[in-house]
Parts: sequence; C-alpha cells; structure tokens
Amino acid sequence: MKAIVKAGPGPGLVVRDVPKPAFGAADVLIRVRHAGVCGTDLHIAEWNQWAAGRVKPPVVLGHEFSGEIVEVGASVTEFRKGELVTAEGHIICGHCLQCRTGNGHICQKTQIIGVDRDGAFAEFIAMPATNVMRLDGIPTEIGAIMDPMGNAFHTVLTAEIPGSVVLVLGCGPIGCFAVGIAAAAGARAVIGVDVNPKRLALATKMGATKALTPGPAVTAAVQELSEGNGADVVCEMSGAPSALHDAFRLARYGGRIQLLGLPSGAVPIDLTNEVIFKGLTIYGVIGRKMYETWHQMGRFLRGGRFDPRPAITHRFPLERIDDALAAIKSGDAGKVILEIGS
Amino acid sequence: MKAIVKAGPGPGLVVRDVPKPAFGAADVLIRVRHAGVCGTDLHIAEWNQWAAGRVKPPVVLGHEFSGEIVEVGASVTEFRKGELVTAEGHIICGHCLQCRTGNGHICQKTQIIGVDRDGAFAEFIAMPATNVMRLDGIPTEIGAIMDPMGNAFHTVLTAEIPGSVVLVLGCGPIGCFAVGIAAAAGARAVIGVDVNPKRLALATKMGATKALTPGPAVTAAVQELSEGNGADVVCEMSGAPSALHDAFRLARYGGRIQLLGLPSGAVPIDLTNEVIFKGLTIYGVIGRKMYETWHQMGRFLRGGRFDPRPAITHRFPLERIDDALAAIKSGDAGKVILEIGS
Amino acid sequence: MKAIVKAGPGPGLVVRDVPKPAFGAADVLIRVRHAGVCGTDLHIAEWNQWAAGRVKPPVVLGHEFSGEIVEVGASVTEFRKGELVTAEGHIICGHCLQCRTGNGHICQKTQIIGVDRDGAFAEFIAMPATNVMRLDGIPTEIGAIMDPMGNAFHTVLTAEIPGSVVLVLGCGPIGCFAVGIAAAAGARAVIGVDVNPKRLALATKMGATKALTPGPAVTAAVQELSEGNGADVVCEMSGAPSALHDAFRLARYGGRIQLLGLPSGAVPIDLTNEVIFKGLTIYGVIGRKMYETWHQMGRFLRGGRFDPRPAITHRFPLERIDDALAAIKSGDAGKVILEIGS
Amino acid sequence: MKAIVKAGPGPGLVVRDVPKPAFGAADVLIRVRHAGVCGTDLHIAEWNQWAAGRVKPPVVLGHEFSGEIVEVGASVTEFRKGELVTAEGHIICGHCLQCRTGNGHICQKTQIIGVDRDGAFAEFIAMPATNVMRLDGIPTEIGAIMDPMGNAFHTVLTAEIPGSVVLVLGCGPIGCFAVGIAAAAGARAVIGVDVNPKRLALATKMGATKALTPGPAVTAAVQELSEGNGADVVCEMSGAPSALHDAFRLARYGGRIQLLGLPSGAVPIDLTNEVIFKGLTIYGVIGRKMYETWHQMGRFLRGGRFDPRPAITHRFPLERIDDALAAIKSGDAGKVILEIGS
Repeated sequence: MKAIVKAGPGPGLVVRDVPKPAFGAADVLIRVRHAGVCGTDLHIAEWNQWAAGRVKPPVVLGHEFSGEIVEVGASVTEFRKGELVTAEGHIICGHCLQCRTGNGHICQKTQIIGVDRDGAFAEFIAMPATNVMRLDGIPTEIGAIMDPMGNAFHTVLTAEIPGSVVLVLGCGPIGCFAVGIAAAAGARAVIGVDVNPKRLALATKMGATKALTPGPAVTAAVQELSEGNGADVVCEMSGAPSALHDAFRLARYGGRIQLLGLPSGAVPIDLTNEVIFKGLTIYGVIGRKMYETWHQMGRFLRGGRFDPRPAITHRFPLERIDDALAAIKSGDAGKVILEIGS
Repeated sequence: MKAIVKAGPGPGLVVRDVPKPAFGAADVLIRVRHAGVCGTDLHIAEWNQWAAGRVKPPVVLGHEFSGEIVEVGASVTEFRKGELVTAEGHIICGHCLQCRTGNGHICQKTQIIGVDRDGAFAEFIAMPATNVMRLDGIPTEIGAIMDPMGNAFHTVLTAEIPGSVVLVLGCGPIGCFAVGIAAAAGARAVIGVDVNPKRLALATKMGATKALTPGPAVTAAVQELSEGNGADVVCEMSGAPSALHDAFRLARYGGRIQLLGLPSGAVPIDLTNEVIFKGLTIYGVIGRKMYETWHQMGRFLRGGRFDPRPAITHRFPLERIDDALAAIKSGDAGKVILEIGS
Repeated sequence: MKAIVKAGPGPGLVVRDVPKPAFGAADVLIRVRHAGVCGTDLHIAEWNQWAAGRVKPPVVLGHEFSGEIVEVGASVTEFRKGELVTAEGHIICGHCLQCRTGNGHICQKTQIIGVDRDGAFAEFIAMPATNVMRLDGIPTEIGAIMDPMGNAFHTVLTAEIPGSVVLVLGCGPIGCFAVGIAAAAGARAVIGVDVNPKRLALATKMGATKALTPGPAVTAAVQELSEGNGADVVCEMSGAPSALHDAFRLARYGGRIQLLGLPSGAVPIDLTNEVIFKGLTIYGVIGRKMYETWHQMGRFLRGGRFDPRPAITHRFPLERIDDALAAIKSGDAGKVILEIGS
Repeated sequence: MKAIVKAGPGPGLVVRDVPKPAFGAADVLIRVRHAGVCGTDLHIAEWNQWAAGRVKPPVVLGHEFSGEIVEVGASVTEFRKGELVTAEGHIICGHCLQCRTGNGHICQKTQIIGVDRDGAFAEFIAMPATNVMRLDGIPTEIGAIMDPMGNAFHTVLTAEIPGSVVLVLGCGPIGCFAVGIAAAAGARAVIGVDVNPKRLALATKMGATKALTPGPAVTAAVQELSEGNGADVVCEMSGAPSALHDAFRLARYGGRIQLLGLPSGAVPIDLTNEVIFKGLTIYGVIGRKMYETWHQMGRFLRGGRFDPRPAITHRFPLERIDDALAAIKSGDAGKVILEIGS
C-alpha cells in the first residue's frame, strides 16, 4: 500500500509502497479515508530536536484519521466490517495508576501512532479495537480530525464554561476549535487572540465574540465583557511566552488557566504576583481524556452544537504531503486534511 | 402607598393603602416597577395548609420584583439613588454554617419577603443592601423575575450540562426557564415534558429539542437522543409522583436528578432499583445560591445567551392581582407579571 | 477440585468436586486461599426471589477472595506465576458509556462471579487479568475481603470526609469498615448505629467515636458533635426504612447521604421536607469504582491507616459453608471468612 | 494602651502607648491575650521593598491573635462581652465577584489588620463582628495562630488528601501545620522537606512519615511510598526556586501542586516538560477561605484531630518583640507567640 514514511534520520518524507499492516486478535484493520496533518508531523518531517530524540525510522506518519473497518481481529466482538470509525491515537498500557483512574491520557507508557509506531498516512492502519470509535453519522472528514478537536474539547470542558468569559490565546486549528466549543458550551463571551489576521478570520467564523491581535484592545475587550473582573477561563494555545504572561494578567482573581500550547524552553514566571496572589488554578492539558472527551465530542457533533468545518482550510491528496506541510508552516492555515481513500 | 395585603387568616387578598416601609441604615428603599406572581402567592391567597402554618397576617405579598432605588440607608456605600435593581428575597442570618460556607440558600433562619415580612406587591419596598443587585442593562421586566429564573439556573447549572441530554419534567415557568438555560449552556438536547400543550408550546419557544406529553414518546425521545443511554440530567420541576418515577427510570446509569418540584405528601420510592442499582445522584434544589446563581444569571442575560421573555404570558396592573392568580391557577400560564410602577 | 455449588433451583448448597476452570489467553488461574462470605451468598443459598430471578444453576458461589496465581494466559503480560492477588468480581463490558467514563461499576452488562458465572468458593478460579490486583504485602486474609471493603471505601470516600461528622447507620461488616475508613480519612467524629450490641462493639473496635442503638441518644450525639448542625455525611448501610428517615432527619442542611443498604420494597419518602427543603445530595452506591476505589484501598492498607481485621469474627473451612451462612444469618457476625487454601 | 508600632518609614519598631481603638456599631472590641508573630511582621519591621510600598505608618502591627470581647457594637447581635474569640484578619469588601462567590480571600479591596490598618500587637483591637470567630473551647494560645494554621488548612484541604502521598516542601510553621493536617486528613504518607534540621524535628513531631533534607533521599522516599508513582499532592511552602522544580519533578503524572511559598522574583519554568506533559494542576494559595477554612479548623481542633502546639517554639511578652523577630529571622523557630494579656 501507499504510505508517507519517515525513512531515516534527517529532514524529509517519502511517499512509497509499504506492506499492509499486520493486525492481531484484538485489532481491527481500517482503510483510511481522511487524515489530519498536524504540527507534530511537520516537526517529524523537519527532524527537529524532539523528533530526533523520539522517532525511530522508518515509520509511517499520521495520527489523526478516519476510515472504514475492513478486517476484524478474532477476539473483537464490538465491531464489524464496513463500519466507519475514527480512533484515539494514544495506545496506553491499561495497567498503571493513570490508566486505572481515568487518566490514561498521561500514561507514561503511551505509544502514539505515527510517532512511536506506524500511523495513518497510509491506505490502511491496524488499531487495537479498544481505541476505535464508531462515527455513527459523523462525516469521515470530521472524524479525521477528532484527535486535535479532542485536545480542544479537553482544554475547554475541563473548565467551567457556562456563563464564563473565555479568552483563547492562539487561534491555530486547535485554538479555533476551542473558540467554537466554548461558544457552544454556553460561554458568556469568547475572545480569540492571534497575531495572524487569517487565523482571526477563522476564529470569527468559529464563533468568537471578538477576534483581536495582541495588545491593549484585548485587555479592553476582556474588561468590558467581564464587568472589569478579567477572564474566568484562559485557554493558552500558542506556547508563546508573551501569551503566557497575558494569560496570567488577564485572568480574573480566582480564574483558571488551561495550558495546551508548548513553550520551547523555560519561561520566567513571577509566581508570587502572577499566580499566587491571584489565587489562580493552572491545568496542563495533553491528549484527550480516554474516553470521556470522545463521548463529549460525539455529543456536540451529533447534536449539531459544534461544526469544525469552517476551520478546515486545505485538502490535499496523500502524494502532496509536502504542500500540506508547507501550508501549516506558513502559519496561515486552519486545519489541513489529506484525502486518502473513499 | 398601594399594596396587595393578606389582611388576616383565611382566603382572599385585599388591595389597600399601607404606610411606606421604614428602612434602616443598611437598607435601600426601592420604588417597585414590575413584580412576578408565583404559585406561592396563590397558596397564600388561598390560605392553604402551608400558608396557614407559616404566614402571620397582615403582610404585603410578593417576593419577585425590580425597581428603582429612591432612598439609601446611612451606612450603604455601594448604591445610589436612581439605580435600577432587583433583589434576592431570602434574607439570611449571615452567621450559621450554611451562610458561612456558600449555602445561604438553606440558612435555617431565612426570612422571605412577601411571606415572613412585607414584600414587593406594593409601590415601595425596603431591602437590605446586601440582597440588592444592580440590573446594569437588564430590562426591569426581566429583572422582576430573576428570583424564579434563579431557581431554574440553580437547578440546571449545578449539573454538568455541556454535551448532556437534559430532561425537564414539568414546563411551568421555572421549567420553561430551565429548558432555555440548558439549551444555552450547551446541552446536546433538551426534552420538555408536560401534560399541558400550551406549556409545551412555551417550552418549544424556549428552545426545547422536543416538547412532549408524558408517555412512550418521552422514553423514545430520550433513548434516541442519548444513543440508548438515558438522560444524563433530569430536572424534576413538577412535583408529580408519576414524574418522579419517570425521572428515576429515564435517567441513565450514573445520571443526576435535580429535584425542584415539591410533591405534596410522601411518595413511595423503590430506592434499591430506582436509585442505588443505577448509581444515581439526587440533589434537592431550593432558592438560589447566594450569590453565585445571581452572577451566572447576569452573565447569561447580559451576554444575550438567554431571554426569558417568550415565557412571559400575562401582564396585569397591581389592582388585578385576582386575575393574575386566576391565570396561574388555570395551569395555562407561563410567567405572570404585575406592572406596578415605571 | 472441591467447590461450593448451587446445584439447582431451590434452597441449599452442596460441596462437591467440579472440574478445574478453563482459562483463556487474557485470563489468569488463581489458587484460592481465603474467601469472604456475604449476605448475597446467603440469598443464593436460601434461593430468595432475587436469586431465583437471576442465578442460573449450577454455579460455583463466591465473589470475595484472594489467592496465588498458578497459570497465566498467553496474552497476559503484567502477571506471573506465584504472585498473590485479589480481584474485582464485576466483569464488565469495557465498551459502554459507563465503562468508558470511569463508571464501570454500573455497566449494565456486568457479570458477577459467584452469581452470573462460577465464583471463588473453590480451590481455583479463572479471572480476566484486567480484574486482578496484586496484593503487594497486603495479607491474603485481608485481600479476600477487599470486595466488601471496597463497597465501604466507595461509600465513604465519594463524600467529603476530613473534618466531617459522619453517621453510619447499620454496623454489619460493611458498616464497620465504613466506620474505620471515615475515622482514618479525618472525620471529626464517626457515630455508628445498629440495633445489635455485638455489632456496636465491633464498630467501637473499628474506631467509632460513639456506637449507639437507634433512638434519642443518636440525635443527641449528632447534635453535640456537630455544634447542633447535623451530620455532614450519612452512610446508610442498613436498608431499613426507619434508618432512611433517620438519615434524612439527622443530615445537616446541605448534607450528603450515601445509600448502600438495599431496602426491600418501596419506602414512602416526603421529598419536600426530607430532601428538597434541606438541600440534600443523595448518592446511590453500588460496587467499587474500577479501579479508583482499589487504588485507594491499597493506599489505606499499605500505609497502615486502616485495618479491617477487628471486624473479622468467624473463620471456617470450605466444607463448613452452612455454619458460615448461619453465622451471617444470626445477625451477630462481623465479617465471615472461608479458609480454602494456603 | 501599649502597642507595637511601626512609627515611620525605615527599619525598626517601637513599643509605645497609643489610644484604645475606636469601634463602630458593627464592631466588637477585643482585649488581646495572645498574638502570633509572622514573617510579614519581620518584613514590616525591616522595612523591605514590599513593606515600603504598602504600609503607611504609623500603624500597629499584628494580624494573628485571640482575646476576649470587652465591648460590643450597637448593631452586633451574635456576640456578647466575655466571649473568647479569634478573627480573620482580612477585612473584605463583601460586594465584588470574589466576595459574592465564596472567594473573599482574593477580594481585591482587602484590608489586612497590622498592615493596612491597626493590628493586634496591642492590648486591644477593634474588629468587624463578621470577621470574629468564637473559640468555643479552643485554647486562646491556639486561637492566636489560627490565621497561619488557616493558610495551611487552605493549602492542604483544597487537595484530595485521603490515601494520598503528600510532599511538604518547607517546614516553617505553616509547613509544619500542613504536615499535621495532611496526616490527620488521612494521607497515606507525609514527607516533610527542609534544609534546617530543627525544622525537620518539628515536622516529625507534627506527624511526618519522613522528614528529610533536600536531595536524593527525598526522591527515594517519594518513590517508595507511592509505589513509584510520585507524590499525589505537593505543598510548596518555601518559595525557593529549587523547591519549585522539585515540586514539578516529584509530583506524579496528574498530580496537584499547591503553591503557598512566595518566590522573590521570576523563576524560569519549563512548562512543557514540568507541567503540561505531566498533566499537573497548580493552585495558588493565599489567605483562608472565608469562612469554610475556619469551619474546618474548628472541626479539626475541637475533634482533637490536630494539635498545633508541638510547632510553637517561642513565647515572649509584647515588649520583647525584637527577640521574637530575631527568633524568626534565625530560621530555627517554629511558631513564635506574644503573650499580651490574660
């Protein structure tokens, strides 16, 4: 089958034929329809420091996808051929404290598809049945991006949203999803912030009350919409140090900060004044709650409360992965999708 | 000033002149604009058993209102003449365990205006400044019904709503508000149930996904919208024993039941099968959280997330209190309002 | 192997030889050391209405046990022969909403060992590895009763205990465990109530601040220890209707009631006065949170914070199951254990 | 009356006669018995940068105290002369979002006694009755230090303690209190860490499972007592940057960090690896929840679950304030108390 492969150490990807994946008794084999492309894929393609330390080539990339089940392992009872599905890409140990208490998303033995084992930028992928979710009416195009949407759901819905003033710092695809989710979940107002006007336009399409570039207008908007109190919830989706300080400054006393963006390097923080005297709560977000977040997503999507499609800006065939990565690198893209099968 | 008075024991109300209320150093005097009429007012007018045991005539009725501040007590610093306000009608002790830990709504020393002391069906009312809330742009007509809306907010927002299937049993005014609040707070679906088609029409106006009379169609709707799981949250707003059993039956395993409707008498409950084996959580709702619920209401109303006005069906001048009560007694009314001043 | 079998419909048990259980690739085979005997076993032995409706003989009884792993299925990686273990006796589907969101204890497809499939009153039992927990230093005698202890941990630790006045109604084995757990978890006081003085003596051994028969002394103790507020948390472990009304009456305004005892039949409840006006929260407890409760138990037991052994009153060999059941039926027993292997 | 006064800008305190404080209708006048001395008092005495920016001399110092009510304001109904009391030293506005939703401890208009207005290092202090708490059997020596104990209660009891491994970094007086509270609230183990062996001896007296100087032994203890998982809860009470990094490193994946110690200046934090990838929750602790924390303290103290006295190391008469401050400055002291009246 055709696949996008990191063939060896160093920059670059190749599209080449690889064997169809083997699958075990507890797995299903899925013919991939759509796959989402992510900043992580760009890091692996470019072979940045993180990638060089973690990825063991050759590996098929891709951790966001949807498709159709074409084979079912011998011990799998809950799926059958022909079902349209997506999957959680974190394959966890199932036995550790975290896995046993509803926190599998931070299992220390996690293997991520497309990073630690072969992924979804291919015609077929084998997945443990436990990780697979039926789409049940959700279009496959949306199913393909439930992994990053799940990051946004996890970020937003672990805070108290109904009636809250929500500030989203960074309006890349996950930030744009967060804007839409907060609006759908009853936020009093959602303020999206980004340096890029194209991304602000997407945030507006996704339902932002205001979409602004960083600066005094953000402060003014937060103050106006919160009766001078500050933001109840800040979703930091950019990883920029300046945004972090904005997060602390613009949160209300007693507010909550959800950290999803990954700063590259240490950021000096004045904990006394930025965090402690304000009585803030800070939560580090990674992955998706398994499987509470997936259940919530299904509800929002099937109930028509949330539609991520306005944030999808690019679609490419598998062969054009380099164009897909270039779109991400430009900083102008919303969500970028590969159209692989049908 | 003119007021609606329960003059002595026994049925009936009188509209008569009474002295303007005295007000102390910590009080404000408010010229009433609108007042909401409630089932409790009907009970006092008809002098049912509860009223006979609690109310000490003569008393001015009315506990839901809005108006304009016309006098400010000597030690009051946070209000000034001319401000438009509403107020929490539960005057609490401030010193007990409940008052000291955010549960003033269940203070055992509560005095309710219009029940235990003179109320708001009058041209003026004196209120402790602590209980008064600025409208800040909320229309006085809406301000007048923030007390019963607050019951609905308390009922709905103490459950987890975003993504949930919410079943509202009983679509009187508070039930209709609950429907609208649940929809605004991100419910995946809100199913309103009532025996009265006029109330179901109001529930639909307020945003119900489905509005149904009790029967198999309710079960079918819950199952369909919840993928066969049952309702995540049931708001029991009717007090009818049959609705209680529906609540237990239609809640999903691990679901939550909010009890606001007041059954008149003991209801036989099979706790083993209806509650324990299902792992349900049940919460008894009374009043409004002081003042978290009021803050939430301000946010939903000022943010335009929720408008209670479709549920207002009748407006009367103060003199026509009997017509107002008749409208409530008919069972067809949504919210009924007295127009007192301007 | 020798086993205690419900051989057919109707009262009575037999001790007889049965084949050693088969075990699959994902299972482990355990040589049983100790097993706990429970009221459920008595119901099956006596063939009450519940048992007649659910149990399909022949079945080996017993759902509480500990033992040594003697065989390991082909796909099991986390256990090895010789390890001492106990197990969760609820075998759940793993795929439903409840299983996927940390509520497997209320999975509707649960199969219980010793009820729906062969259990632990036998020399060997096969268990899915997912349900097995390493004892890691916990004595096997204690390991054998972690199932009912888990009910008590689930009951107590899903309420807020540090600083609380906790009332435990019903001091059978699970009630006695609840007393000890509440004391270990920082309750300000734990009041145990039972009609049986022998059980009250056990409750005292387990750490009850007071152990009392129902009556005015209970009310007085609750009032005295709570500064007149009422109990913060009531654990209803008896299923007696009178105890339920005591629970509602003795809980403080805003208190929490944990229902574990199973009333046999409907109980008339005045929800208006007993629940709603008091702002109570009620939670139906069944089974153990999988596997949060087990983690908590491990911590309390290994940390030496809690020792259930004072509540163990009887030990019998497997052949004397009838004596074990008679001890339970007498109402005087604490926990009753079968000594099966070593 | 005699009082300890910061007479003007610059270092130093004076003991001199000042007028007895005036008290208003809503106040009580209290004859001080004991008062706690705190690092904040040292900062004011030494006139550090924070003090120079905030304190407006002349002001009577002291914010921790107990005493006897000797006069009662005209509108105060809940107290009478002769009652022994302590008080919350944060005088809050009562009207802001924080005050109205149970977060008065982070009211932005807070006035602190002994900092922003005259305090308790004097023979008498006037306090708003709302801030006053009856001791009801708690010794006045303990009552005098309920303010810093309250910081420790707030820190510990806003985390989930029963069954948890709790790491306390910094064993000054508040750290020592935290050790004792965590032990009383059912921690599986409490590990106290400090550079000063005298403080470690106090932590051991207060109930630490282990008391260690920073280094590999701390890591080893955390790993051993948590089955290799890391600490469930870390209470950072030192403000030292190295301790902060220890907190992040030693917390388990999904753990919780309570920040009470105040770093002086920005600390570089690698949020990606120290916080986000670990899924940590961080909470900034300031003051005491008003008045939930005070209620909890009353329960622990009156129930005999916690005794702070082993951490009291020095007692001085009011005149010896310089010796008291010197004891604190030495770093060897536990809690230091002034004995003022009787």
